[in-house]
Amino acid sequence: MMEPPNFSERTDKEQVELGLDFAPRFDENGLIPCITVEDESGDVLMFAWMNQEALQRTLETGKAVYFSRRRKKLWIKGETSGRIQLVQQISVDCDQDTLLLRVLMKKEGACHRGYRTCFYRKLKTGSTSELEYTEPDRMFDPEDVY
Amino acid sequence: MMEPPNFSERTDKEQVELGLDFAPRFDENGLIPCITVEDESGDVLMFAWMNQEALQRTLETGKAVYFSRRRKKLWIKGETSGRIQLVQQISVDCDQDTLLLRVLMKKEGACHRGYRTCFYRKLKTGSTSELEYTEPDRMFDPEDVY
Repeated sequence: MMEPPNFSERTDKEQVELGLDFAPRFDENGLIPCITVEDESGDVLMFAWMNQEALQRTLETGKAVYFSRRRKKLWIKGETSGRIQLVQQISVDCDQDTLLLRVLMKKEGACHRGYRTCFYRKLKTGSTSELEYTEPDRMFDPEDVY
Repeated sequence: MMEPPNFSERTDKEQVELGLDFAPRFDENGLIPCITVEDESGDVLMFAWMNQEALQRTLETGKAVYFSRRRKKLWIKGETSGRIQLVQQISVDCDQDTLLLRVLMKKEGACHRGYRTCFYRKLKTGSTSELEYTEPDRMFDPEDVY
């Protein structure tokens, strides 16, 4: 059982950057960016946002909950697809305005397009305009899931 | 010599999400979030933003150039500290509104606080309020550099 989330509001630079109080800084829209990494491989799976409630729910449940800017509501990752993210670790950056989650997915496929990671395309070597796939195999068919 | 950057403006969902045209989508402030990863380890080093010019300069020079929201200007990473980031790969996410850079730093220490990565603290296991260090050793003393 985790203690109830209780974020520090200390904003002095020394504490924010070097201190040990968790004091996440939400932006003017009440959001904080969140990078989600596969715990085992360290690969970046996705990028999303949390508001304070999403972060609290993530901490309380141990499962990643984001805030959908498009739908303007909490987004319990995996609620529809079953591909939930079990949070293994949460880090903050130097100025505590970005979060980094390490997650375990028992069913892989973090991306709504069926890929393991949302970053399934990269710029071709030497090109500034053409992409190529780095994740050729989908983990699921979106048509079957959404 | 790279071709001059020439981003596609095609916005149809099929192309953006599954196509091979690089069509980065900047937000209402003209910015796109950028996750920067150490190429060799895959560890996340930092999170920053680019505007179109920063991305073009990054592509032209092969060195990471960001946009500082605080200073409201281009931020050539390593210009002051000498800790430049040589870009090895650029990926985009499914909806092409987030970038992922893999970089090589000949002089380590991506964080202005002297750490290898900006994510040098994590929530203590079982705690929702207390951080602990994961990167105890600084690569440089900020006082000597800035």
